[in-house]
Amino acid sequence: MLRYLTAGESHGECLVATVEGMPAGLKVDVESIDRDMELRQQGYGRGARMKIEKDRVHFLSGLRSGVTIGSPIAIQIENKDNTIDRLPPVFEPRPGHADLSGALKYGHRDIRSVLERASARETAARVAVGSLAKCLLKEFGISVHAYVVMIGGIWAKMRAVSAQELARAIGHSLVRCPDRAVEKKIISAIDKAKAQGNTLGGAFEIRVTGAPVGLGSFVQWDRKLDGRLARALMSVQTVKAVEMGLGIRSSQSLGSESHDEIFWTKSRGFYRKTESAGGIEGGMSNGEDIVMRAYLKPIATLKRPLRSVDVRTKKPVKATYQRSDVCTVPAASVIGEAVVAFEMADALCEKIGGDSIHEMMRNYKGYLKQVHEF
Amino acid sequence: MLRYLTAGESHGECLVATVEGMPAGLKVDVESIDRDMELRQQGYGRGARMKIEKDRVHFLSGLRSGVTIGSPIAIQIENKDNTIDRLPPVFEPRPGHADLSGALKYGHRDIRSVLERASARETAARVAVGSLAKCLLKEFGISVHAYVVMIGGIWAKMRAVSAQELARAIGHSLVRCPDRAVEKKIISAIDKAKAQGNTLGGAFEIRVTGAPVGLGSFVQWDRKLDGRLARALMSVQTVKAVEMGLGIRSSQSLGSESHDEIFWTKSRGFYRKTESAGGIEGGMSNGEDIVMRAYLKPIATLKRPLRSVDVRTKKPVKATYQRSDVCTVPAASVIGEAVVAFEMADALCEKIGGDSIHEMMRNYKGYLKQVHEF
Amino acid sequence: MLRYLTAGESHGECLVATVEGMPAGLKVDVESIDRDMELRQQGYGRGARMKIEKDRVHFLSGLRSGVTIGSPIAIQIENKDNTIDRLPPVFEPRPGHADLSGALKYGHRDIRSVLERASARETAARVAVGSLAKCLLKEFGISVHAYVVMIGGIWAKMRAVSAQELARAIGHSLVRCPDRAVEKKIISAIDKAKAQGNTLGGAFEIRVTGAPVGLGSFVQWDRKLDGRLARALMSVQTVKAVEMGLGIRSSQSLGSESHDEIFWTKSRGFYRKTESAGGIEGGMSNGEDIVMRAYLKPIATLKRPLRSVDVRTKKPVKATYQRSDVCTVPAASVIGEAVVAFEMADALCEKIGGDSIHEMMRNYKGYLKQVHEF
Amino acid sequence: MLRYLTAGESHGECLVATVEGMPAGLKVDVESIDRDMELRQQGYGRGARMKIEKDRVHFLSGLRSGVTIGSPIAIQIENKDNTIDRLPPVFEPRPGHADLSGALKYGHRDIRSVLERASARETAARVAVGSLAKCLLKEFGISVHAYVVMIGGIWAKMRAVSAQELARAIGHSLVRCPDRAVEKKIISAIDKAKAQGNTLGGAFEIRVTGAPVGLGSFVQWDRKLDGRLARALMSVQTVKAVEMGLGIRSSQSLGSESHDEIFWTKSRGFYRKTESAGGIEGGMSNGEDIVMRAYLKPIATLKRPLRSVDVRTKKPVKATYQRSDVCTVPAASVIGEAVVAFEMADALCEKIGGDSIHEMMRNYKGYLKQVHEF
Repeated sequence: MLRYLTAGESHGECLVATVEGMPAGLKVDVESIDRDMELRQQGYGRGARMKIEKDRVHFLSGLRSGVTIGSPIAIQIENKDNTIDRLPPVFEPRPGHADLSGALKYGHRDIRSVLERASARETAARVAVGSLAKCLLKEFGISVHAYVVMIGGIWAKMRAVSAQELARAIGHSLVRCPDRAVEKKIISAIDKAKAQGNTLGGAFEIRVTGAPVGLGSFVQWDRKLDGRLARALMSVQTVKAVEMGLGIRSSQSLGSESHDEIFWTKSRGFYRKTESAGGIEGGMSNGEDIVMRAYLKPIATLKRPLRSVDVRTKKPVKATYQRSDVCTVPAASVIGEAVVAFEMADALCEKIGGDSIHEMMRNYKGYLKQVHEF
Repeated sequence: MLRYLTAGESHGECLVATVEGMPAGLKVDVESIDRDMELRQQGYGRGARMKIEKDRVHFLSGLRSGVTIGSPIAIQIENKDNTIDRLPPVFEPRPGHADLSGALKYGHRDIRSVLERASARETAARVAVGSLAKCLLKEFGISVHAYVVMIGGIWAKMRAVSAQELARAIGHSLVRCPDRAVEKKIISAIDKAKAQGNTLGGAFEIRVTGAPVGLGSFVQWDRKLDGRLARALMSVQTVKAVEMGLGIRSSQSLGSESHDEIFWTKSRGFYRKTESAGGIEGGMSNGEDIVMRAYLKPIATLKRPLRSVDVRTKKPVKATYQRSDVCTVPAASVIGEAVVAFEMADALCEKIGGDSIHEMMRNYKGYLKQVHEF
Repeated sequence: MLRYLTAGESHGECLVATVEGMPAGLKVDVESIDRDMELRQQGYGRGARMKIEKDRVHFLSGLRSGVTIGSPIAIQIENKDNTIDRLPPVFEPRPGHADLSGALKYGHRDIRSVLERASARETAARVAVGSLAKCLLKEFGISVHAYVVMIGGIWAKMRAVSAQELARAIGHSLVRCPDRAVEKKIISAIDKAKAQGNTLGGAFEIRVTGAPVGLGSFVQWDRKLDGRLARALMSVQTVKAVEMGLGIRSSQSLGSESHDEIFWTKSRGFYRKTESAGGIEGGMSNGEDIVMRAYLKPIATLKRPLRSVDVRTKKPVKATYQRSDVCTVPAASVIGEAVVAFEMADALCEKIGGDSIHEMMRNYKGYLKQVHEF
Repeated sequence: MLRYLTAGESHGECLVATVEGMPAGLKVDVESIDRDMELRQQGYGRGARMKIEKDRVHFLSGLRSGVTIGSPIAIQIENKDNTIDRLPPVFEPRPGHADLSGALKYGHRDIRSVLERASARETAARVAVGSLAKCLLKEFGISVHAYVVMIGGIWAKMRAVSAQELARAIGHSLVRCPDRAVEKKIISAIDKAKAQGNTLGGAFEIRVTGAPVGLGSFVQWDRKLDGRLARALMSVQTVKAVEMGLGIRSSQSLGSESHDEIFWTKSRGFYRKTESAGGIEGGMSNGEDIVMRAYLKPIATLKRPLRSVDVRTKKPVKATYQRSDVCTVPAASVIGEAVVAFEMADALCEKIGGDSIHEMMRNYKGYLKQVHEF
């Protein structure tokens, strides 16, 4: 079982993530993790702060000479702006944020005590965790790619490509959108929203390639892989909907059009020609690509402020303006990739057991053979 | 902390659910639970089997004279059709079901060992659990209502009504859709699909009324209420997408249109005039109605069978036809209501602590006063 | 991961245990489970009630033709005496029981609402769960035997024998004590206590044979096998102390006498000649027999009643007398065997993964080979 | 629910603990935590290394101006000796340590990858966590004190004193033993063992004062307070037995002598005159002091080395000597105090709910009143 906790405030000293249950013997690709850390900070439409800071992971424990030893892995990400004890109090809750509910729940008059932790800054720790999980998945030939499919109502056209081509196309795009034609329109839309002091939401898709059949389980409600993935994605700031495969389209279609028929050849074993289910049936991976989408509301911190109330005086105010991001969908897709990678790694560890990469691999090969010879 | 496990196969002796952590002193309304059990079995578009069986809950433990005593509550639901050891083996996995993945994962040549548990029959146990949770919520003035908003691409128009009116409108509809005009179109669509041997999916909405501000938390990824609700809903058979509030619409809108501005009056305290967020901000309830949607694929068991493969011979076959349901969206909405009710009850218990209704109520009133006087 | 919940009151309809995570393909030896159920009811020194009832397990789910299929296993044990709603209220809390604390915690004026669940009757469900776990362990050559080593201050002399001999010696003893000489003295002591209206405690030892090295882990406090075993044993009614290996003696000895030196031969691999550590070092099994002891207070329900207070009047009273057992240590050892077996099975599943006996065995053999070739 | 994870190796950069679920509004007494950190490093019989290093906690998150805000609390403890990547490999497993089992489990040829995490250095993080928990308990008038009752077979005589007097007596002793007469004998024994290159074990007692009735529960096996405490204590390095109250003595006594009779006066409510049960009945606190003991083996790293085997050559060797401690029982008692404090704080939070000290206190007072007026 893998598990993790994160800690840290937006303007505190640092973020810390502790990951428990990683097998021994995994060579950690720190560069690839730092690359993901950077990607989380980028994307067309980000404000000034993001361009200054450059997150780097620092492993406090769990490695010897860059290789895991089975002990918990603590990862630290420094905050350049450690001013939490000097920053002014906040009394004007922003609609769309944790501000008001958090203040009432925890009894905080000064809303800063909420927003410092509720801030999306915390997701840097989750990206580090997920990117570490990708190192594990890679050993087993499993990759996870997230990419933007819509911003501001402008939809990309996706076509079937290999995982590598997909990765390349994402990497080349300023908004992590593989459809070059649509990218330009999206950038115009962002520019327009920015000029108006407004913000834009969107949607990203995540594709997991190479996952074996049988991760997750149908036997108990809380072991279903789609449920676990949905929780992980919905827990990302601004995500307001999660879809597996062609879920929303299928809900409006006929049954005869909505299921992935089953085929078999000697070399491939069982396979499908379509991916309506998004690679998950009965709460388990079915051996095809796992495909899911997250839909994100536009960020709530607008140059054009929203109406709110001062928590001291109860008088109407305009919600505090703090950040200049117009669109964070590309960044959010990096976070989505991370949290999905963690869930996949957890499901894999649960399925095959083992305490070292060597042992996991032996178990894994045995299982693949079993499936192949079924 | 509330927790539950279910057990039982579709054609086994019975289903059993065990619920742990319920406070003492709750008068259990067994009739209301049985009503929910029945509702799960109904809805225009169900096949013959559903009409014969009539589920009833039987409490094996946890009550004295109909009142909880704090000990675990085991609920049994008898299966009329206890034939699991006599039923023939199944070798033709149905697309869209757990059949193939489950067989490969658990090494079952006879797929019956998968489908008996993966079957939606299991959700009867979850409805019992959720309906029990509704008894608890009711003590605190919290209600949960699920209703159909779309079937086969035909959308209902929803308008703001009281929880009571809503309940009445749902109760009067053959498809649990409060929009009477649309109900007729939906029934025609179901009839048409039936005539074609096809199936229909749809969407339901769930509205939680009366929940206090501050359930769930932003402090750790796995404590976010929306994440927990998404997991619960996504774990229901055929659900392929979950949306909080106006999530999908918001993702295509401007930031200035997508957030619920904050107001205050002496009598109401803080409140909103809109419900884009669906009552959840920062992973916590914000004191407004919690509104979410689930999107369901059409059921995969078609009269018009889909292509599959015999797991013994690896030859192409037509997937076994077993059930005559055309549309289970109304029934699924009952299940969705149940699993959401459980998560809300769990979040409530976690927030206010206590081991008896009396103690919970005292803590609850103290918290409401704290919020009111903030 | 294995997990289980039990439910049921002493005079309710039945007890129910639900076990989650059992692999598929395990032939369940129902007879051996029923034998353990009986053993829990026996032992010299038990009162009349135990002789009348004869517990039998009834599997409500999870099996097809007696073999597990991977789905949750619900086990029912009928209560012969289902009178909970007719039995009189209790207002006199018994010292040494959950009575008073439970009444205050849950706000029960009528203490029956506490004692019905707190009763050791519930352990019948745990014996069923643990006996099922023993079926799993047996597949991997792991056995668990508990036996009485002391009653009323009279200690048995234990000598090294094979697991089979040990089992035989336990089976032949009226008090589950392998030392025949001491058995007689113990029986006299029980007779004497009975004549005086008194009760006796004691100690039992548990020996796990055949467990592989490396179950549990040192990497996080809550993953240590000894901690998990201690929790399981301490959670058994009347257990007041738990000891691993020669723990108490070692605490009073020199370091040079207290550790199990390490040896190696080609055929055996690494091994020890002593068992001070009780087979657990650093929170992990070390490949030797796991040996632990539990110490039990005499049961608190005495014919010679203890002083208490009527919860209504607050007047002094003599605590209610309800049961005629003089000594339950032999029965408790059966329960201890069960809870230890469950923890061992859980630790094994966690170590080697897999969803079927077949897959587990393949992984297991791979691991044993790895250890052997280290 | 409180939870925590620790990370960090003995010669890595630092230790990190992350604590989740702490209420907001708790003033953290950093000085008292640092005092506990120091106490863990002291005690007559420690070697040279302990005298050089002086642990200090550094809060990375969760506080604003020294007060908790409800977010996770990450605590860092620097290692002065960060040499993990330069230290030589280890091939000679020490009996009594995790060395051999850990190497075989995780597949580590170089045993350093085991001992770096299995080392008792990790307990510094647990002391920090527990000491933080004591700050929380203090707000509710609950104190936790651990003290040595035996070293090397020399037993202290304990007499009833107030919590304050007890704390003072512990503080004045070089071996944390409140019995001054016995202290001298213990020190002589330590000196003698040192001269012989040997080590000594012992026992410590923990007394929790001020805990309310009703923490923990009897309703499910894993919710029993004594089970949770036993797990926490048994997970501390060198602890090999755990005893609640007079458990071991009671196991050899008559029932009439082994239970705490119940009394009542208007001012005190229900109370006991004896403490055989150690303040826990039926898996719940009973409102009296909670008293438990842990028994520790002598540490396994002896100047007089034990026999072992080189894992490469399989030739017999003498186990590596690394540390010069003779007796760590006083230090272990500090760790025991910490882990018990954490479990008590967790049980308290679970019982009374709430997200801030203010809310917890309101709920707590309501509960105390309910108990008083029962």
